[in-house]
Amino acid sequence: MRFLHTADWHIGKKLHGFDLVEEQRDAYQQILAIADEEHVDAVVIAGDLYDRKVASELSVNELDDMIRDLNLTHHYPILAISGNHDSATRLGSGSHWYEATQFYLHTTVAQAMKPVELDDTQFFLLPYFEPFQVRHFFEDDAIQNVQQAMNRLVTEMQQQFDPSKKHVLVAHFFAAGSEHVDSETSVEVGGLDAIAVDSLSAFDYVALGHLHGKDALHAEKVKYSGSPVKFSLSEANQQKGVWIVDTAEMSTAFKTITPVKDIQVLTESFETLIDPKYYETVNRDNFIAISLADTQQITDVMARLRKIYPSIISIDRQNGIEIAEQQSRVDPNLDPLVLLDHFYEEATGGSLTNEQHKWAALTLTDAMGEETV
Amino acid sequence: MRFLHTADWHIGKKLHGFDLVEEQRDAYQQILAIADEEHVDAVVIAGDLYDRKVASELSVNELDDMIRDLNLTHHYPILAISGNHDSATRLGSGSHWYEATQFYLHTTVAQAMKPVELDDTQFFLLPYFEPFQVRHFFEDDAIQNVQQAMNRLVTEMQQQFDPSKKHVLVAHFFAAGSEHVDSETSVEVGGLDAIAVDSLSAFDYVALGHLHGKDALHAEKVKYSGSPVKFSLSEANQQKGVWIVDTAEMSTAFKTITPVKDIQVLTESFETLIDPKYYETVNRDNFIAISLADTQQITDVMARLRKIYPSIISIDRQNGIEIAEQQSRVDPNLDPLVLLDHFYEEATGGSLTNEQHKWAALTLTDAMGEETV
Repeated sequence: MRFLHTADWHIGKKLHGFDLVEEQRDAYQQILAIADEEHVDAVVIAGDLYDRKVASELSVNELDDMIRDLNLTHHYPILAISGNHDSATRLGSGSHWYEATQFYLHTTVAQAMKPVELDDTQFFLLPYFEPFQVRHFFEDDAIQNVQQAMNRLVTEMQQQFDPSKKHVLVAHFFAAGSEHVDSETSVEVGGLDAIAVDSLSAFDYVALGHLHGKDALHAEKVKYSGSPVKFSLSEANQQKGVWIVDTAEMSTAFKTITPVKDIQVLTESFETLIDPKYYETVNRDNFIAISLADTQQITDVMARLRKIYPSIISIDRQNGIEIAEQQSRVDPNLDPLVLLDHFYEEATGGSLTNEQHKWAALTLTDAMGEETV
Repeated sequence: MRFLHTADWHIGKKLHGFDLVEEQRDAYQQILAIADEEHVDAVVIAGDLYDRKVASELSVNELDDMIRDLNLTHHYPILAISGNHDSATRLGSGSHWYEATQFYLHTTVAQAMKPVELDDTQFFLLPYFEPFQVRHFFEDDAIQNVQQAMNRLVTEMQQQFDPSKKHVLVAHFFAAGSEHVDSETSVEVGGLDAIAVDSLSAFDYVALGHLHGKDALHAEKVKYSGSPVKFSLSEANQQKGVWIVDTAEMSTAFKTITPVKDIQVLTESFETLIDPKYYETVNRDNFIAISLADTQQITDVMARLRKIYPSIISIDRQNGIEIAEQQSRVDPNLDPLVLLDHFYEEATGGSLTNEQHKWAALTLTDAMGEETV
């Protein structure tokens, strides 16, 4: 079978005060068009459908419209889970009626244990979970962290494996090795909350949500789709899109989504920015992040620039931390201590002392130790 | 056909801080048992399923469990609307999937215009509405109050009438002539928001929600079921239950629901209340409202009485306003001005002056005039 893998729709999310509903509607239409063109048999949405546990009434309407269109109008089976931004209970209310039209929405650990079988594939739909939920479910006090929880879950899921079928896990967590950026807010993405990619090797494909860039992880069978829309300045340089997965040959292809209003960083002096010769070359409909090259005081800078660039999302000084560029400079495969050096330097302008280095190394070793217990 | 008419479940409601979830679960079980015994073909729920527009996760789970049990396990068709306590949007999310199993939940004026046909009956499911919603729906600026809105809605619904069928309206509003009590909180129940019973004569039966006592209105074809559970001291003497409606002969029968913990008013002196000879005759598992006969100061009265009566919902002095008794004394069919006299006397101990009487009469005439425009 062929399915489309998307995640992190975050309906209700704002970008520095700007409503993203038009972006999200357009992205949805692109997802639908890709599903049609690629003749997929199902659509996977790997969590964080909403941006907040108590979504606004407008957001409830938006998501309801999209899901109705996809499932009831266009008759795509949907395989979805709740993410850490969703309220599993609120999102899951009503889900028992959805299955009649092949809209499978799992929001509890118990549901994750019963695979959904479509064509040649068993889908295990595992919502975002906290270790205590898995501890309670199995009544096993030895389950103390997400890795232990995940190991147990995988073992149980394997009991359900039909060897004649392909096995796909849909989940929402931080997989080890991931690079992550600042719009995955209020998420525990520390080392202790990571799940090692190796521990997921039982599956033919793992469709992940949680991190917003597809390049957050480079593994053949374990992939983040990323969000369909750019949700922060740190995502300015990400290519958004969805994965098309073909289970016959277990091939994957990334299909891109184009923003209506892109996020663009302008690093210029104030004088240049207000010069028509310059700004007429810029797509001023975009969300604009400005990094001022000036060093002197400029009065009323936001108001003056907003007259020219209506959708300014931030103004920074070039010598401040300029996140979007940082992201593109940093190689996520570097040693964590080297990454820490980079970060400390860019944040403070100084370097770690030898003593600080030693502490960091010790803490990291401790953390890694706990992780692989 | 035969259907059961209930309303005002108010899942999530508390009684002076006491959780009512056990009461509500038990009432649900009694409703289910009545539906079985009476061999009904459908269950009508006339609004206020939740107590709050943003229901807690616990409440979402509770209601979901009940509705699933009724519709998916016991296969009863459900005809439901949103009330003023519900968020139409939140409650209605997912409702497009529910109809596959004959769970009809209408939360918009547009939906109310399309009758649900079951057996020999057309059901018009009209959610709680504000006049502006009907004004917008019909694009008619002449619609300024609920009566005007209702007249227009009835006219439109009549266009849909199949003369070979019975016609039932399910709605959630204050019908004129109603007596109402203090647990219908934050509701605009003034005269201007009332709908005249006469204007509903096109229907064979009107299944109402909004007021919590079945005796709030005495009309042959327009009935409140009342809430299944007592939600305030003022409901202490109400008999709770549901209506069984048979459309073949258009007969109605009231079936009672028995509380697990009833609301009971004790009017005694403190000395009597703490005397085992007295309190051993009382069902102390009940919710107890105490009206102290004493006139002297008593220290730490709540703490001392709670040791004996664990579920005290209020302590009053006998010479204060004692609502539960008031309710039973007042005949709702009295002239509004006579009712006002009663109320003023009991609230203040004095009587209205002639001048005050005149003002009240004038205001009432004005209000009645606007109502019947």
